[in-house]
Amino acid sequence: MNTATQSPENTAEGVEALMNRLGQAARAAATMMAASSTAARNNALLALAARIRSEADTLKTRNAIDIYAAESNGLSAPMVDRLRLTDKVIETMAQSCEQVAALPDPVGEMTNLRRRPTGITVGQMRVPIGVFGMIFESRPNVTIEAASLAIKSGNGCVLRGGSEAIESNKALWALVQAALADAGLPKDAVQLVPTTDRAAVGRLIAMPEYVDVIIPRGGKGLIERISQEAKVPVIKHLDGNCHTYVDAEVDLDLAVKVTDNAKTQKYSPCNATESLLVHVAQAAAFLPRIGKVFADKGVEMRADARAKAILADVPGAQVVEATEQDWYEEYLAPVIAVKVVDSLDEAIAHINRYGSHHTDAILTTNHPNGMRFIREVDSASVMINASTRFADGFEYGLGAEIGISTDKFHARGPVGLEGLTSLKFVVLGQGEVRG
Amino acid sequence: MNTATQSPENTAEGVEALMNRLGQAARAAATMMAASSTAARNNALLALAARIRSEADTLKTRNAIDIYAAESNGLSAPMVDRLRLTDKVIETMAQSCEQVAALPDPVGEMTNLRRRPTGITVGQMRVPIGVFGMIFESRPNVTIEAASLAIKSGNGCVLRGGSEAIESNKALWALVQAALADAGLPKDAVQLVPTTDRAAVGRLIAMPEYVDVIIPRGGKGLIERISQEAKVPVIKHLDGNCHTYVDAEVDLDLAVKVTDNAKTQKYSPCNATESLLVHVAQAAAFLPRIGKVFADKGVEMRADARAKAILADVPGAQVVEATEQDWYEEYLAPVIAVKVVDSLDEAIAHINRYGSHHTDAILTTNHPNGMRFIREVDSASVMINASTRFADGFEYGLGAEIGISTDKFHARGPVGLEGLTSLKFVVLGQGEVRG
Repeated sequence: MNTATQSPENTAEGVEALMNRLGQAARAAATMMAASSTAARNNALLALAARIRSEADTLKTRNAIDIYAAESNGLSAPMVDRLRLTDKVIETMAQSCEQVAALPDPVGEMTNLRRRPTGITVGQMRVPIGVFGMIFESRPNVTIEAASLAIKSGNGCVLRGGSEAIESNKALWALVQAALADAGLPKDAVQLVPTTDRAAVGRLIAMPEYVDVIIPRGGKGLIERISQEAKVPVIKHLDGNCHTYVDAEVDLDLAVKVTDNAKTQKYSPCNATESLLVHVAQAAAFLPRIGKVFADKGVEMRADARAKAILADVPGAQVVEATEQDWYEEYLAPVIAVKVVDSLDEAIAHINRYGSHHTDAILTTNHPNGMRFIREVDSASVMINASTRFADGFEYGLGAEIGISTDKFHARGPVGLEGLTSLKFVVLGQGEVRG
Repeated sequence: MNTATQSPENTAEGVEALMNRLGQAARAAATMMAASSTAARNNALLALAARIRSEADTLKTRNAIDIYAAESNGLSAPMVDRLRLTDKVIETMAQSCEQVAALPDPVGEMTNLRRRPTGITVGQMRVPIGVFGMIFESRPNVTIEAASLAIKSGNGCVLRGGSEAIESNKALWALVQAALADAGLPKDAVQLVPTTDRAAVGRLIAMPEYVDVIIPRGGKGLIERISQEAKVPVIKHLDGNCHTYVDAEVDLDLAVKVTDNAKTQKYSPCNATESLLVHVAQAAAFLPRIGKVFADKGVEMRADARAKAILADVPGAQVVEATEQDWYEEYLAPVIAVKVVDSLDEAIAHINRYGSHHTDAILTTNHPNGMRFIREVDSASVMINASTRFADGFEYGLGAEIGISTDKFHARGPVGLEGLTSLKFVVLGQGEVRG
């Protein structure tokens, strides 16, 4: 345990030199990962699951160092809880590695092979992107999530976790490197930034020679700063101001059930509904019913004048007048913005103007309206008659989720293994030449 | 012809305000284009073809102004030729609009729809990206190419052509706007930057609120500068240092024919082969034959020591010793770098190190070697037994080509209509909620 890779923060090496070394090592290893067999990558994931289970006590001991420091530094109890590697968290990490191992291998898949008039056959092959950088906070299990997706997709990665979880992350990372070695794969494929120096992030996001894409998780401020300063593409979303729109023609029971779920099943996720739009034709019928649900659950309603006039009569409802700012807001709390609209057009225009292009749903029995909504709402996920809470890589069947993108380039929406790959063209010929 | 949109360069309006106005107009129109019918967009393309033919004389008159200025400014004859709107160029533009109209509509296509255990159906819908900015030089027909692909793909665009073609571009753009209006589509969907002020480019590439992606065509220096300064993704390639690798097991007749075509069919395209790698087992048999072809066609060979020793005996061969720099070079001329390698591994490593990740081919009869090559060579197009000259949107069956990308994100290789679109997730439910 005394090599330079394992404890460079104790050396005189500068952060830039350190990051260059990690990046270079990841890049070289990624080339080998890209050429590795499906079996070797799956074996590494199974070995990792086994090591997580067999080293549970070590993980808890190292985790205790982070917990002690966090408590000494006065971190709030919920923050400390997020750091904790309990038996349940440890078993879940092990299982997630096994689940990723069981997914189909995205690498090397060839699609769209077609014969051209010249005789050549042209198609596309899915290959790893190369090396991704991941920046995350608190929960140390993200180290295992990111590492397992890197291994499965044949990429290298450089992980930068939160300083409060550094001991836990190092312990987990040691298991990842050992599991790679178990499977005959280069252990340098997964790198962990071993220093808490913030300059490391600045370098990580600006070395295209070693790192092809950055995936940040964390607060909006952090992600905005990373996006502005990065010299490589960033897979990200900033906000989840998701809308549920209740159309003029709708099954009211369905609308109440889905809107309730979209808002209240959990308040903190980015795919929870934050704004409710109701067509004027259903306002008088729908708003009192959903208003009662929200009143019973203590959800505050920030309503426009027309919605307020109806909701004010609901016993126990907390209704306040919405300001312009409310239409932009991602509350992540028992608060919802409510607006009555005169048409589908107005609903679509409102969502495209105020929304965050994350996830938006229409509840309707009218087929053309549903089709117009999903085509014209410019968001990563668009839904008909379903809860916005479904916007999730596992619910979509991707098998895993490394992040959610609200950009239109490359991966959009929940990002699984495919978002970590690239499609190159392959041409299969028998000596054809161009005329 | 006296509205502000048509001649803003004559007003006191600043370039930034001008570009903001063009961008805003394109953004607003793009929303309508995204929602427009397939028929309307195809009608616009057919109307454009008709107008190009019926206004051929006007086009030639306006083009003559550019030609006169170019000749007065002492532009070289080949440069002036590239500017010229001949009857043939005009007819080709009209036909290309008809060909784009005949392509399948990429917009609204839904794929991968699958039922999930929860009951929801999840898939992806292809939608326009929004607005692209295109920066190009000399040939005015690019105005029609870019406009027709924007119309077909339901995008808006802001075009910035070369100052030497400004009158021709304006005349073509007027036809585009008229054709959009013919079809009941917003004419603002296609904007032309009407000023030759270079500050316009700086603004075009840095207004993500209006322009989603930049596609530059031109010299490497221009594209590098744009890539560094752009605040939005750039679809681009810098070099085409393409390789042809002759493997240890190969059909020599095929190898001579394909290598000849890859190098000499045309010298200037980015997909012409610039470096030839030959396995040592075939060097003595293959190099004299290809050396004779190159000698006869006046192609200079920059060879490593082992290749030079063989090629020196070929009558009439122009052989010089290669320097390290030759392995990086994109000659775009009757010059080729030649190297003997000891293994497939060495060939792959050489290509990944010195190449430009554009297009590389292996000529082999050995199946595992072919498969390893196409998997491990990290380029946008990889080929077995075919000429690198095939790397082209039309040859690949994309129906059109807006550019070629050597990046791994989003579109890679020749970029057709799909590269101008984005995939969003669609969820079709019957009132499902998340548990």
